[in-house]
Amino acid sequence: MPQLRVALSQIDTTVGDLDGNVRVLREQVGAAARAGAHLVVFPETAVTGYPVEDLALRSSFVDASRAALGRLAAEIADDGHGDLTVVVGYVDRVERSERTHDRARAAERGPRNGGGRDLPQNCAAVLHGGRVVGRYAKHHLPNYGVFDEYRIFAPGDELLIVRVHGVDVAVAVCEDLWQDGGPVRSVGDAAAGLLLVLNASPYERNKDDVRLELVARRAREAGCPVAYVNAVGGQDELIFDGDSLVVGADGGVLARGPQFVEHLLVVDLDLATADTAPSWEEGVRRVVVTPDAVAPYEALPAPLSHPLPDVADVHAALVLGLRDYVRKNGFRSVVLGLSGGIDSALVASLAVDALGAENVHGIALPSAYSSEHSLGDAADLADRTGLHYRVQPIGPMVEAFLANVPLHGVAEENLQARVRGTTLMGLANQEGHLTLATSNKSELAVGYSTLYGDSVGGFAPLKDVPKTLVWELSRWRNADAEARGEVPPIPENTISKPPSAELRPGQTDQDSLPDYAVLDAIIEDYVEGDRGRAQMLAAGFDAETVDSVVTLVDRAEWKRRQFAPGPKISFKAFGRDRRLPISSRWREPAAAADPGSALLVEDPEVQR
Amino acid sequence: MPQLRVALSQIDTTVGDLDGNVRVLREQVGAAARAGAHLVVFPETAVTGYPVEDLALRSSFVDASRAALGRLAAEIADDGHGDLTVVVGYVDRVERSERTHDRARAAERGPRNGGGRDLPQNCAAVLHGGRVVGRYAKHHLPNYGVFDEYRIFAPGDELLIVRVHGVDVAVAVCEDLWQDGGPVRSVGDAAAGLLLVLNASPYERNKDDVRLELVARRAREAGCPVAYVNAVGGQDELIFDGDSLVVGADGGVLARGPQFVEHLLVVDLDLATADTAPSWEEGVRRVVVTPDAVAPYEALPAPLSHPLPDVADVHAALVLGLRDYVRKNGFRSVVLGLSGGIDSALVASLAVDALGAENVHGIALPSAYSSEHSLGDAADLADRTGLHYRVQPIGPMVEAFLANVPLHGVAEENLQARVRGTTLMGLANQEGHLTLATSNKSELAVGYSTLYGDSVGGFAPLKDVPKTLVWELSRWRNADAEARGEVPPIPENTISKPPSAELRPGQTDQDSLPDYAVLDAIIEDYVEGDRGRAQMLAAGFDAETVDSVVTLVDRAEWKRRQFAPGPKISFKAFGRDRRLPISSRWREPAAAADPGSALLVEDPEVQR
Repeated sequence: MPQLRVALSQIDTTVGDLDGNVRVLREQVGAAARAGAHLVVFPETAVTGYPVEDLALRSSFVDASRAALGRLAAEIADDGHGDLTVVVGYVDRVERSERTHDRARAAERGPRNGGGRDLPQNCAAVLHGGRVVGRYAKHHLPNYGVFDEYRIFAPGDELLIVRVHGVDVAVAVCEDLWQDGGPVRSVGDAAAGLLLVLNASPYERNKDDVRLELVARRAREAGCPVAYVNAVGGQDELIFDGDSLVVGADGGVLARGPQFVEHLLVVDLDLATADTAPSWEEGVRRVVVTPDAVAPYEALPAPLSHPLPDVADVHAALVLGLRDYVRKNGFRSVVLGLSGGIDSALVASLAVDALGAENVHGIALPSAYSSEHSLGDAADLADRTGLHYRVQPIGPMVEAFLANVPLHGVAEENLQARVRGTTLMGLANQEGHLTLATSNKSELAVGYSTLYGDSVGGFAPLKDVPKTLVWELSRWRNADAEARGEVPPIPENTISKPPSAELRPGQTDQDSLPDYAVLDAIIEDYVEGDRGRAQMLAAGFDAETVDSVVTLVDRAEWKRRQFAPGPKISFKAFGRDRRLPISSRWREPAAAADPGSALLVEDPEVQR
Repeated sequence: MPQLRVALSQIDTTVGDLDGNVRVLREQVGAAARAGAHLVVFPETAVTGYPVEDLALRSSFVDASRAALGRLAAEIADDGHGDLTVVVGYVDRVERSERTHDRARAAERGPRNGGGRDLPQNCAAVLHGGRVVGRYAKHHLPNYGVFDEYRIFAPGDELLIVRVHGVDVAVAVCEDLWQDGGPVRSVGDAAAGLLLVLNASPYERNKDDVRLELVARRAREAGCPVAYVNAVGGQDELIFDGDSLVVGADGGVLARGPQFVEHLLVVDLDLATADTAPSWEEGVRRVVVTPDAVAPYEALPAPLSHPLPDVADVHAALVLGLRDYVRKNGFRSVVLGLSGGIDSALVASLAVDALGAENVHGIALPSAYSSEHSLGDAADLADRTGLHYRVQPIGPMVEAFLANVPLHGVAEENLQARVRGTTLMGLANQEGHLTLATSNKSELAVGYSTLYGDSVGGFAPLKDVPKTLVWELSRWRNADAEARGEVPPIPENTISKPPSAELRPGQTDQDSLPDYAVLDAIIEDYVEGDRGRAQMLAAGFDAETVDSVVTLVDRAEWKRRQFAPGPKISFKAFGRDRRLPISSRWREPAAAADPGSALLVEDPEVQR
């Protein structure tokens, strides 16, 4: 059986930074060459970054992606690595397509929306000897959740099999793997010796096991090992977690990369010899790069990382998402308000982990209603983490407003939050920091925040973190520090005290909201599970609580729309993957509607 | 030839308000019956409102839509109108589908995203005799611009032909009409006597002619008259303009409804007699409701409205969009800041037109840098329109900030805008108004606004109106008032003075931005036209200006994401139909990239 040393490069590219991405790709090919690899695989659209969204509709962008790929091929050869076979994702376009489907897609868009142009495609290219020798266009374009690929790309319908050192290597891209009866089925028919899958598969809590099971199942279907390389890094609301995998034809794990860090996973594989005279099949494009097997050599031990346990992985995802958002948007430092409460304490701790204490500026903004422990807890947090700490009382500004604009009740409560927001934004503008919003998912769900007040900020690290998970993460982070002999960053009092917005005397969150354990469970059922009122009552929730939470969630959509992006860690976050009307009067019906009452009458007298 | 009196009901339904929508539908059927109609047609998904977006993924919602349809059928019969044939759009689901496409769609979504459930469909139902006697599912699901239908709905593949008083009537939904070779081609083959098309087709500047030409072309293809009924009203960022049409088999206009108002368009048609024994065709479902033609009667004259000229139509769209957003979100009144400038003056005038002067509250918020004419112009506007007017100087609050937080330069400029925003939001919260943002599309494009400052508000009437169009609309509105012998609402000085943010002494917009005529032309090319830098230079724009504008547009995406919704009037607005990454480093290349350099090597030596 021929041997092949395969390098899976899980890298963190930036959308639109084609020059920067090509530089990283070139360096990684060099590293793979030094490690003796024969074949290097990069993630989906690594040349352009993922997801490019509507940039794909701009022809100058597609031209630039194609040109960057050509440059990369030439530079790899210039570096003396032209003998390596490199498989990398990029954005290309359909050339002079006559396929019915593409013409229908073009027509669907209309002449003003790119319909008159060639449609872009999500592609993988095979580079060898300074040239592009093979091209595969993704077959299955996901069109759910955060994915809009069917909107922007035309699908491919051809299989690509590349012969590398006597092994027939098939190529697929991400969603192709998730489809029963997709191209992987054909890979088995085409008798490939190895299947490469290029991915940009976002992190989602508890998703890693799903992915491993899927890769193992597809390997058994294809009858050959599968090398699954995933992107890593944060891009807007998405976090790619790496966790690249190689499994054998029996579905057993052969090698696994770490999560949440860039890594070059190098693995030696014994693979089936290619049929020296394969019959040409319809829909399969075969390219021979290097026909003959390499001379036998001693295999390296296969590296096997283990995925992080729950909560630790969420924490790592949040830190990476925050670091990359700050960096990719050209900021170096962040500012946030420190209330002494748990949300701002966790955000501060995440920011210190992501950027270093020297780049984190915490501002305490006490008012007349702030309790004494609030300032003490904020100062304690600053001591523990080493972040820059300032106290900026808001009393004088609030008083100036109240002396001139007669506000009371909720309007006065909101005023305090907005004076804080204005102060933070002023400092951010003056000193060049990105402002972090500290609201959590539970608050965002029910609209328990002040628009342009505590919700200000360019990035919201806890946007997809419900309050109960805020506590879990804080406890985990402290315990982890203790286990490593370090100072736990979050003051114990911050974790244990009852949560309060402190906008009026003695206020606590539970004056307005159900207990967070109940609230978070209802939000999960309603938002993640899309369950109706009747289903939630059947699951044992109290009717009054369900009604009040569901109404709050429905009515807060307009407020959420003006909220900053934040890292997505759940299946259904508030953001791009949840598209709901604002001006909607939809209210969950008290009882399940009888869906049968509108059934079509199948009456032979009126029907032929 | 049999006669048929057809009523096209262009109504304004609300997404999710199923009870309210059914009430309107029932009333409209009554009105059509009183007008002697035989057939009543309503817009696309009139039962649920349009667009329902991800509400379609909630099974309780689809159940409620089906139940509401059944209730409507029964109530129409209870009212004594069971003999009318009613065609109405609603949301249904695929029943026990075995079609490959549906299974692929379900699998694509995965078990957690509705994949395990029946997929929703965008349907038209035929009601007669208190029952649902026919059902058509939309074939073509648009997946571009603001449309996400392919994401949420499964397509239909069957034609529906309903015999009504001896005429074979075919049914299609919206996008079905826009597809060459779509179901309309089959309508011709099926020898229908009339084609009904149910639409929710959003207004877009200069779109009406495109629509008329399309309907005329399809009528000639189908070989029969086409009755095209469109929704009317604002729903979040979309505005439906009505403008329902009936064209003859030769493409000539027979009747046309007004734009931007609810209307029942009643028209008498002479139609081809149905083949009494149609052969059954594959993919066609035929239902006979009333086999025999009605006795000959005297036809009414056909009503023929004329579409509004340009600028008048934009003005009407903005007024309707604003009125419906306020109403559908449960507000009665609005508040906005009046600077004396053109943007806030036009927004105030639009709000007075939409809601009445008694529901509009304008607040002048002068600072030390406000020029004398600013307050005078704001007061003049208030006089002319009769809106509620107050002056609330921001000096004391700004001074309180500056005494406590040392801000200067841009941070101090932003502070003033944020103190204004905080004041407006305080008054809005206290008095229960919706706050209107007054920023225009040109500012939004280049990020020329203060986040949480002048950009505050729940709705932004000028979000899709470039500055040059702001002036055009203001001049048009004044001239229109003069032509009707009314007081022009907008002070002449507000129109003629140079635009300024007045955040520092002597500041004008053109200190930071190119002339608005040039800026708007570049924005149109870059945002609407998706043209690259090289194309814009070839079109004659100055390189330095293009570079600075394009860079500003690219960098302001994060700011636009936190902006309120506003009525969409252009092909490509900032909002749901423009999906771009925030953390993108994409910059238009100085010269067009050579797209050929990455071309696949078609080398027979490496290729079989």
